[in-house]
Amino acid sequence: MSELRLDPVEKYTVVVAPERNKRPKDIWENSNIISAECPFCPGNEEMTPPDSFSLKNNLEKWTIRTFPNKYPAFIDSSKAVSGTQEIIVESVNHNLNMGEYSQRHLTDILCTYKNRIISLKKKADIKYIVVFKNHGASAGASLFHPHSQIVGLGFVPAKIIEKTKALKSLFHKNSECYYCGLAKSSNTVYENNSFVSFIPETARFSYECWIIPKRHKTFYEETTPVQLEHLADVILKLLKSINGLLDFPALNLIINTGYGEKTEPFFHWNIQLVPRTAQLAGFEMATGFYINEVSALQAASQLKNLI
Amino acid sequence: MSELRLDPVEKYTVVVAPERNKRPKDIWENSNIISAECPFCPGNEEMTPPDSFSLKNNLEKWTIRTFPNKYPAFIDSSKAVSGTQEIIVESVNHNLNMGEYSQRHLTDILCTYKNRIISLKKKADIKYIVVFKNHGASAGASLFHPHSQIVGLGFVPAKIIEKTKALKSLFHKNSECYYCGLAKSSNTVYENNSFVSFIPETARFSYECWIIPKRHKTFYEETTPVQLEHLADVILKLLKSINGLLDFPALNLIINTGYGEKTEPFFHWNIQLVPRTAQLAGFEMATGFYINEVSALQAASQLKNLI
Repeated sequence: MSELRLDPVEKYTVVVAPERNKRPKDIWENSNIISAECPFCPGNEEMTPPDSFSLKNNLEKWTIRTFPNKYPAFIDSSKAVSGTQEIIVESVNHNLNMGEYSQRHLTDILCTYKNRIISLKKKADIKYIVVFKNHGASAGASLFHPHSQIVGLGFVPAKIIEKTKALKSLFHKNSECYYCGLAKSSNTVYENNSFVSFIPETARFSYECWIIPKRHKTFYEETTPVQLEHLADVILKLLKSINGLLDFPALNLIINTGYGEKTEPFFHWNIQLVPRTAQLAGFEMATGFYINEVSALQAASQLKNLI
Repeated sequence: MSELRLDPVEKYTVVVAPERNKRPKDIWENSNIISAECPFCPGNEEMTPPDSFSLKNNLEKWTIRTFPNKYPAFIDSSKAVSGTQEIIVESVNHNLNMGEYSQRHLTDILCTYKNRIISLKKKADIKYIVVFKNHGASAGASLFHPHSQIVGLGFVPAKIIEKTKALKSLFHKNSECYYCGLAKSSNTVYENNSFVSFIPETARFSYECWIIPKRHKTFYEETTPVQLEHLADVILKLLKSINGLLDFPALNLIINTGYGEKTEPFFHWNIQLVPRTAQLAGFEMATGFYINEVSALQAASQLKNLI
């Protein structure tokens, strides 16, 4: 059974989840070989729980499917650590990098995120939702086949409560949403009609990019279909240039969407695209410092040149 | 030139340090081959800055040496990010794991840490000192040859100021030092006359062990030579059992020693020994949660059985 522990000094939370130990792990060195044993490959659907949602092609074969995580860290039954975890298998193709999807296919994935958020939000006991993708072993992925995850928690994490406090206080100080201000003062990488992407001066990892909608919006799940197409355009442009520059690095993609019922002037939903160009080391753990070898200005200019 | 940036929302600090890009990196796959090009191997001393300190054997050959980091993130000249960084080459042997040192040799290393802390503290502009070791690429090491680092900062990091506040408030609430209480309530792994090691319930990584002196002490550098021998005993016992159980994992060792002038009832110096049994993934980055697959009780019992 999962247990939650808040460190009273450093304020991080630990989830003890022994059943996660049982989940399968690819041998990463062989990860380019499509395995008959890959639980996310077509034909192996019986190795996963049944679909909660799927998109199908003309031949009635799935192109994207979602289902509950078989090895959850959060379990519905326990009040203290209640939650729901879903896997989104992004493609039937075992080897595709997200940067290699068509804009149409990535739009479908972004639309699936939206649908699943809306569906999870209907559960009365879900208070906080996050969508993320871990690509590569050093970004925390345990399976190679391209997939994302959506976690709905029965409580708001301590870190998010602290973040909300800070964002509220910055809003009152500057009479402006922190992210709106950040987009103006940061080094833009690429923008289209609906979205802008930039590298903040506080990027922890080299080439870390943030994406926000140009109009202040609190909830990802309120994004329109046309805007999701524009978002796919930005993500693809960024991934192609990051993959070109860093040779397909491990990376995390995180969608931070609002919680609660109403649109908030201080919270702007955002995406963080984090190539794992460095490892968290002893110094970072001890001091809360991240050492970034590439300035935001230089990183933005390098990526821009590749778009 | 290095630059410091505090993220006003998440409160971490970013150091932009482009010159770090130039530092050499081993090819890890070949790391077991002693390289004529290893800057830390005997005979290659001219590849590093001159020694700031060294221990020598009967033949006047060094056994442990320290020198300024050639690729610092913190530079003396810049006021905002002033600091000093030193490398401690722990052994002439390119391939030894810290768990394979003799107790005598590890005591010498611990004594070298003490000497260098005392020496750096004499610099008027140093306000905070941390000693750490990164072992293995996934723990953030860029070179294989066994080494530790000591960083002296011209300022107290934001995270440490927050930590100090939390520790003071816990002291007032519980009338007891947080670490003294933690050692009592946690799962002990091993203890001797001077030190106790345990796994806290808030361990972020499986098999993460903490070590504290049994008597409340604020400063590592006040540890006596006999106590350093006892400390070497604890570290060796822990590393041997961790290496046996996890097959020589990547790991970080962090010495958190007090700052300021006087002994504080709320701060107990401590060592964190962190096997990198998992990678920081998107979920952890987004929510401040660490998912630990092994409970403190189970991890302590497994390690204890191997001691």
